[in-house]
Order: sequence, then structure tokens, then C-alpha cells
Amino acid sequence: MTRSYNFCAGPAALPQEVLKKAQEELLDWNAKGLGSVMEMSHRGDEFVAIAEQAEADLRELMTIPAHYKVLFLQGGASMQFAAVPLNLSGKQNEVDYFHTGEWSKKAIAEAKRYAKVNIVASSEAENFSLVPAVSDWRLNPDAAYVHYTPNETIGGLEFHDIPDVGNKPLIADMSSNILSKPMDVSRFGLIYAGAQKNIGPAGLTVVIVDESLLGRALPICPAMLDYKIAADNASMYNTPPTFAWYLAGLVFQWLKAQGGLEAMAIKNQQKSDKLYAAIDYSGFYSNPIALKDRSRMNVPFVLSDAGLDKVFLQEAEQATLFNLKGHRSVGGMRASLYNAVPEAAVDALIDFMQDFEKRYG
Amino acid sequence: MTRSYNFCAGPAALPQEVLKKAQEELLDWNAKGLGSVMEMSHRGDEFVAIAEQAEADLRELMTIPAHYKVLFLQGGASMQFAAVPLNLSGKQNEVDYFHTGEWSKKAIAEAKRYAKVNIVASSEAENFSLVPAVSDWRLNPDAAYVHYTPNETIGGLEFHDIPDVGNKPLIADMSSNILSKPMDVSRFGLIYAGAQKNIGPAGLTVVIVDESLLGRALPICPAMLDYKIAADNASMYNTPPTFAWYLAGLVFQWLKAQGGLEAMAIKNQQKSDKLYAAIDYSGFYSNPIALKDRSRMNVPFVLSDAGLDKVFLQEAEQATLFNLKGHRSVGGMRASLYNAVPEAAVDALIDFMQDFEKRYG
Repeated sequence: MTRSYNFCAGPAALPQEVLKKAQEELLDWNAKGLGSVMEMSHRGDEFVAIAEQAEADLRELMTIPAHYKVLFLQGGASMQFAAVPLNLSGKQNEVDYFHTGEWSKKAIAEAKRYAKVNIVASSEAENFSLVPAVSDWRLNPDAAYVHYTPNETIGGLEFHDIPDVGNKPLIADMSSNILSKPMDVSRFGLIYAGAQKNIGPAGLTVVIVDESLLGRALPICPAMLDYKIAADNASMYNTPPTFAWYLAGLVFQWLKAQGGLEAMAIKNQQKSDKLYAAIDYSGFYSNPIALKDRSRMNVPFVLSDAGLDKVFLQEAEQATLFNLKGHRSVGGMRASLYNAVPEAAVDALIDFMQDFEKRYG
Repeated sequence: MTRSYNFCAGPAALPQEVLKKAQEELLDWNAKGLGSVMEMSHRGDEFVAIAEQAEADLRELMTIPAHYKVLFLQGGASMQFAAVPLNLSGKQNEVDYFHTGEWSKKAIAEAKRYAKVNIVASSEAENFSLVPAVSDWRLNPDAAYVHYTPNETIGGLEFHDIPDVGNKPLIADMSSNILSKPMDVSRFGLIYAGAQKNIGPAGLTVVIVDESLLGRALPICPAMLDYKIAADNASMYNTPPTFAWYLAGLVFQWLKAQGGLEAMAIKNQQKSDKLYAAIDYSGFYSNPIALKDRSRMNVPFVLSDAGLDKVFLQEAEQATLFNLKGHRSVGGMRASLYNAVPEAAVDALIDFMQDFEKRYG
């Protein structure tokens, strides 16, 4: 059977090689009769080795400095929306947030439970179609940290440069562009990412945190959200999501075999350049985001006649191009081009779009 | 290869039939080219059908009344230790807890962040070897709820009757005995359970809650821990742990095929009766728990000579009897006999123990 293509924004496509390896090992991980990884004690030698290897591979891929802790947690970015202020808003209780789309908005709403939020800059008036210009930023000198969303999964907006926020800890919700290109981790105080886009299956959340930020949690912070407790217990304060952690490790090994993040950056640029070119070249499809701020990971687009959306999606499915429907909050289409989506998928999508335009445009 | 036996307290053994089915479907769930369950949109028709079927099967297995919500969450019981008081301690802010072992203790410590905790009864002075007698209970008439741990996984202590706490909501950490026998759900305000024992893989937490208890969360409760938000969004306020949810559904189907919880109760009673009889009959092994309060799920035991522990564990592994080491906080041995551990595993363990006693006793 021909492999179909999955453009889902998350849970997203996983590398075929990773799924095949997981399938081979599903009943018996190492052929010694220990059973499935799912059945292993998280404190046993076998699983601890799997967990440590995954962390080592992630450190290597992202060149994570030694003074950062890497945590394997649960709850997705939405849980981090609370965990970040609960851990880091501190005594001053003032925090800075960029507002660049739906996910920033959710992070801001949750932070307001625990701290006074200053909006550094917002592109809401421009319908989140651009990254606010540096000249428009209003940083609060008393803020405990500055939070931003490097890639807005729904809007398709990406910061291509890391914001310079002086000596404040910069916190990033990197859920939808982590591992898509090299990033200088030393510029961040904390990075968090739900796994279900570029890391592995849903149900795992990776946090990379400068250890100087540990130990500042508010007394009302649940133990399970306290980064210091997680770090002191090597992410095993309680039972971690072992199978998801193992799968993330297989993805990290796959990424290393692909040439690491430099190689992924080139591929991701090629894939998204091609698709944006096809959209811009047509008179039928369009993308609303400023050219310089377009996401390499999530490409939303609309048809010139929204009445054709349903037919487009139906025919795309018939052509085994799946999950192209835009987020329910914005409509239209969206193609997510994470690491595991091959260039051939983009080529197939462009062919389909051009054919569709000929027939209906 | 002969199947080895896994007595792990959690993540625990899963039914072979479940693992085989998951293996078959791992690359392509329904042979239509949609890919793995892990790659599906959680809001797509296919995954929603999987999720709803799992809930329907759990409702059938446990005879859950219609006015209870069933939630599929993340974070394990330890996250619920915070979520319960954050949702339910209310204005009176006083809560009742039973203290019967290590897991009660952790639940109490976390509840103290958010509420005034009254200890209804404790068996700490008896080293948690018994369930406190009803005559010793001191319920607080002003408490918002009463919390207990029906089965202490580490100590091997089980409440065989549901405590009568009048008209107060009774909250139970059922992580290690859920689905092991029929339980009258209508007696509870809320039941929670980490999946990694009798439900499925680690990384999923099931909450069953009387809907009259929804909407009471404190303002400091993170959105991700608010039961009403989870219920209003059918456990998809954000991306749920889709693969773990799917696997739990396979386990529920397996349980139905086994004859449901009545059948499991008989099997679990037989398995634990056999093992306790072998322990009590020997002069070499012993279990410290009062006869009437012994757990059917977790059977801790010690050797008369603790110096032989290491040899016992080594030889057990050679006999492919895995994960018999007691919890690091108490030492000794522990055999966990969850639903997926067959009676043949108990027979093999007893044979090994008797042989070991002959050689070293």
C-alpha cells in the first residue's frame, strides 16, 4: 500500500522508521523476555537506560548547555501555561507576555491567575498576521520573565529571530517548532514543548530549564508542577509516561540519523518555501501572514471561494492527503509540515492543489 | 519463547492479547491508510470514536451511573493529590483524610497546601498493618469531603468495604485496585486512578466524578486541573494522551471478554488466596498485614533472613519471574497481582518460593 500523507497539526505524523521499530519491539523490547517497554518498572535498569539515552540524544541534538535541566513531564503546553507563573513569577509577581495568536492568548489567560501580566506587544489589531516590530515592544523592567510563542500553530506565524529581552529569563512555548532547526538554548531561561508535533506521541511534555531558575515555586504550586521537584527526581517524582518517553527517544535517534537539526532546518525551509510559492503563485489560494514571519511548520491557506472548502477537503482525502482542515477557530485549510512530513508529501499536496485549481478555479 | 511473568507494581503487566492487537495496528490502525492511532487528530472522527468507545466500555464494566462524568487525564494520582483539594475543598476549606500508608501520606501532604486537613484515623502506630476500626474514626462535620486510599500499593493494605461517611462526598485513590472487582460507584463522590496498574500504560489518569461536584474549583486551580473544564471539553481541553487512551480501551474490551469485573474478582481472590496461603504455610516467608485487610493486588513479603533477599531476587529473575523487589521505602519483596497477571504466574512464583525455601530455609 502507498503511504498516505498526514498534515495534522498534532498529534502529528511520526517517522515511519520510528513506528516500525516500536512495532518490532512492542511485545518484547530486547528479546530477553522482559516484555514491552510499557510493562517495565520506570525505576528498573532497563527503562532508566532508555530514559537517560533519550535525554543524552536530545542534549546532543539541541546542544543543551550542562547547566540546563531536561524534564520529561505530562499535561502538554496548557499545563505549562500554569506551571511557568507558578514557578517563576516570584515575589514581584509581574510578568511580560507577547501576544501573537491563539496560543499566546491562552498562556496569558492562565498566567493572569497567578501574576500581573504586562503585554509587551500584540499583533491582535493586525489579526495576528505579523510579529510585532521591536520598536513597539514595551518591556516591564519589574517583570520576572518574558514569555513568547516562537511559532503560533493555529495562525501560522513564526518568530525567526529569538527576541532580545536583555537579562530577563526568556520563556518559550516551543511546542510546534522545537527540533525544526538549531536554536541557541543559552538564550532561554526555559523552553517547553508538548511532544505531539516534533518530539513524539501526545502525553509527553519536554521542559528545558536553566537550573538557576529552580526552587522559586510559589507555595500554592502543586508538587507535580514544581520544576525543582521534577529535576531532583530525574522526572520520576511519580510514574512518568514511559512509552511516550521511549518513543521520543526513538525520534531523537532518527533525527540524529537524518543529520541533526542543521539538516532538518534545510529540509523544513525547502518544504515550506515550495508550498508558499505554490500558494502565492496561484490566484486561487492565499496565506495572510507577512512574508518575513511565515511559519515553516504550519501553513494555513484559504481558497478564493470558501464555498469550495468542503469539496477541497473531500477530494484531498480521496487523494490520501489527510488532515488539511484548518483549526476550528479560524477555518480554511492548514498544512503542518513537521520533521516527519517528507518533501514528497509537499509535492503531492502541491500537485493536488494545482489540479484542484484547474478544475474549480 | 515462554512468556515470562511480570509482578511489577506499576507500570505493570498488560494482557498479551492487548499488546498483540496494538502491535498489529501500530502502523495502520484500520488499514485505510490513516496511519497509527498516535498520528491521528484527537478531534477527528476516528479518534473520537475510539475515545467514546473506551468510555462506554468503562461505564459498562463499572456500572457507572449517568450522573457521573468519566475523564481521561494526565499526571497520575500524584497530580490528583492537588487537583482534589483545588476542586473540592470549597469555602469551608476543611477536609478529611484517612492515613493508612505511603500513598495516603502523600495525598495528605499535598492537600495541606490548600486546605485544613483532619486525619479521620491513622494506622501509623501499627506500621500501617491494618485498616483503622470504625470506632476509631473521627470525622469532621465541617469537612468538604472524605478521602481514602482503598488499596495501599506499597504496604499491601486494602479496605474490603467502602467506608460509610454519611452524606459527605467520598473520594478514593483507586489507582491500584480499580477494575479488580465490582464496586458501587454511587457510593463515591469521585474516584481517581493512574492507569499503569489495571487500566493501561503510564501517562493516563482516569477520574470518575459525580457531576454535582463540578464547578467548585478555587480560583488558583490551573485550568488543566479543573474537572468542570475537562468535563465540558470531553477531556479534550488540550491534546489528550491519545495512544494511552486507545490502549485503555483495548484493556476494557479484554476485560469484557474475560467476563467483566465479577469474573476478575473471582480470579483475583483465587490468586491472592493462594499466594498468602503459601506465605503463611511456610516458616520462611511472612506478610505483616492483618488477615482481614490484606490486599488482593499487592502482596509484600519478607524472608526470615533478609540477607537472602538479593539471592532470592537474582534467582527469581533467572526463573523469569521479574520485578519482585519491594518498594525502595520498605524493602523486602512484593508481588503485584493485577488483572493481567495470570494464575499461572502465581503458581510459578509459589513453586519457585517453595524450592528456594527448601534450598535456603
